[in-house]
Amino acid sequence: MKNTPHAPGACRDRFVLGKTVYMNGNSLGPLPRAAQARIRDVVDTQWGEGFSRSWNRYDWINIAQRVGDRIGGLVGAAPGQITAGDSTSVCLFKLAAAAVRHSGRTRILTDAGNFPTDLYVLQGLAHLLGEKVDVRAEPADRIGAAITDDTALVVLTHVDYKTSAMYDMAAITAAAHARGAIMLWDLSHSTGALPVHLDDCEVDFAVGCSYKYLNGGPGAPAFSYVAKRLQEVIVPVVTGWMGHRTPFAFSGEYEPAAGIRRTSVGTPEVLAQSVLDASLDVFDEIGLDEIRDQSLLLSNLFIERVDRDCAGLGLTVASPRDAQRRGSHVALTHEQGYAIMQALIARDIIGDFRAPDLMRFGFTPLYQTLDDVHATVDALHDILTTGSWNRPEFLQRSFVT
Amino acid sequence: MKNTPHAPGACRDRFVLGKTVYMNGNSLGPLPRAAQARIRDVVDTQWGEGFSRSWNRYDWINIAQRVGDRIGGLVGAAPGQITAGDSTSVCLFKLAAAAVRHSGRTRILTDAGNFPTDLYVLQGLAHLLGEKVDVRAEPADRIGAAITDDTALVVLTHVDYKTSAMYDMAAITAAAHARGAIMLWDLSHSTGALPVHLDDCEVDFAVGCSYKYLNGGPGAPAFSYVAKRLQEVIVPVVTGWMGHRTPFAFSGEYEPAAGIRRTSVGTPEVLAQSVLDASLDVFDEIGLDEIRDQSLLLSNLFIERVDRDCAGLGLTVASPRDAQRRGSHVALTHEQGYAIMQALIARDIIGDFRAPDLMRFGFTPLYQTLDDVHATVDALHDILTTGSWNRPEFLQRSFVT
Repeated sequence: MKNTPHAPGACRDRFVLGKTVYMNGNSLGPLPRAAQARIRDVVDTQWGEGFSRSWNRYDWINIAQRVGDRIGGLVGAAPGQITAGDSTSVCLFKLAAAAVRHSGRTRILTDAGNFPTDLYVLQGLAHLLGEKVDVRAEPADRIGAAITDDTALVVLTHVDYKTSAMYDMAAITAAAHARGAIMLWDLSHSTGALPVHLDDCEVDFAVGCSYKYLNGGPGAPAFSYVAKRLQEVIVPVVTGWMGHRTPFAFSGEYEPAAGIRRTSVGTPEVLAQSVLDASLDVFDEIGLDEIRDQSLLLSNLFIERVDRDCAGLGLTVASPRDAQRRGSHVALTHEQGYAIMQALIARDIIGDFRAPDLMRFGFTPLYQTLDDVHATVDALHDILTTGSWNRPEFLQRSFVT
Repeated sequence: MKNTPHAPGACRDRFVLGKTVYMNGNSLGPLPRAAQARIRDVVDTQWGEGFSRSWNRYDWINIAQRVGDRIGGLVGAAPGQITAGDSTSVCLFKLAAAAVRHSGRTRILTDAGNFPTDLYVLQGLAHLLGEKVDVRAEPADRIGAAITDDTALVVLTHVDYKTSAMYDMAAITAAAHARGAIMLWDLSHSTGALPVHLDDCEVDFAVGCSYKYLNGGPGAPAFSYVAKRLQEVIVPVVTGWMGHRTPFAFSGEYEPAAGIRRTSVGTPEVLAQSVLDASLDVFDEIGLDEIRDQSLLLSNLFIERVDRDCAGLGLTVASPRDAQRRGSHVALTHEQGYAIMQALIARDIIGDFRAPDLMRFGFTPLYQTLDDVHATVDALHDILTTGSWNRPEFLQRSFVT
């Protein structure tokens, strides 16, 4: 591990956290103080005093590109290749549909364990297109072999939402290209957590969400990446006025804007994009190489302590132990995982649960310390050895887990 | 005009307006004080202190349906038929695609003067589906005759964004149904401005935006209406996890949720939907029949005064003079419309401009008074008679008009 100028948790003061041990930044990032200040300014001043003039005065009209370029800096994309906006599901639909229409081939290949919304989006697209397209879902270890000459598009999530297992982006992208397939990565569990090199890996398309490691807020805008070399080749199919060459000419015929702008669809979500924009400020201070080093410091400590202190208590580490193959969260299974997680949350140590038996712990060194990791494992040990998870209020399931 | 308990402008204190004469609520509504307070609560308390727990604690997970039902109350839709979320463009794509897939017919009919994003969305859908679908755009007065037995779907905007001309929703919907076509209305320029009766008119689908007369903020979430009788018949094609029967089971196969919930796609925009939710509060106080009466009081006065005081100054009223055929804005044309509008804005009287020569003035009696109308016409008269629009700063065009 290289010498790092920032200790884990060095930016904790830039977030609203109080005494909470927050281990769920892989699901919803906490509130950055910069975002808290920004939303007041955008609402009170820009909207409240500027009214519709603010489309020009504060350049609202270009916010999707401006925020997109900042995200680009975090995923190895040169400017002009990312727009922010829409949900990850909608971004995936629009890019996958354009890719399939462009390809002329019939098959979309994906990981059977992909995040369900990715699977659903592809299934819906196949339903819309009828006999033209089918979706083939394979286990992660068979993806490489399953890319064939009829594969139009490979859609994978870089870091698995359950296990945290990470694909080799460069190798899989090269394998897809070798067969003439288009490669689309979902970066929801990577962006802001670890270095991603979209341009260097010659990725074609990518999408991702911003409410996890980017701390953009609940339901924050997602983003769409299209490699420069494809931008003038691909014809968008979800075509709204913000992707038009001259939206304020109000022409009746769609003409795609130059470059990445053509992937924009409707009016940009100005309030939410402004919050996200402010949330990105912290990444100007600490780079992703450093964040990654510290994240592994935290997660390695977590696994070591679980192994050492919780042996025989029914926990299994479900994430890769090889740090280089692991994203920025660690999953533990336990048959009472749901109740154990509720017992942790009741102690103000917040992670989350994924059916049927998976507890997830996110490692986010911007605001997390080594003490947080110790507190989490200490609490886990206590809950398991005392059986204090076995209470009605912890066994009763909420809708959102 | 019936006797109304509220005078125009009676709710002005519920908005942040200062001394501005705001005539652009048809483009972007002003900031409601309730929204200003709500965003602080949602950011500081719900996100800042609740973290991911707030998905259950504040029922974020159902916000799209909750806000949708409130919008339903403003457009004549019984509960359980509207979800809020996504942009109007994306909502139109998802409903039009599902409708065409369901119909089996080949043609989408629309108004050649429809708002461009509606045209672009339909063109993109046709491009995606190839030979299966074409888009036919006709002038408004030929729509009825152009509905034929191969029409899958009729897509119209209820109130024209330029002229303010309003379709007879009941008559056109009946004409579409008589030919076996599906009817989809875009309510962007109707919702919150005048009574709409989706259920009574037996409309099939509708979409609309919330940043105009609903005052939901820049880029606020749009909404999607699907009539109850079609909800279990139509299979969504833009299928994300929030539209799944059991999203937190994380199943690999899409199964549509019961009812309107299946039209939801990605994670709801919690911050923006919360702002919109608060913005709707004012409609609990004043009903749309009354708002409509007062809007016509304001717009009739505006037209009368333009006719009387601005005759011979090059202005033409481009909106229907028959109030029953007019929405809630009035368009005036003038060959120097752009510069004249900038001169008005410089006097803190804010409307907007649409190429090539159209000035739009929105009538929004929640916060607008008869004095605002007089001030606007007085200023127009002064600018035109003095020629004070003819200055470099007013002639220089901004990107957003």
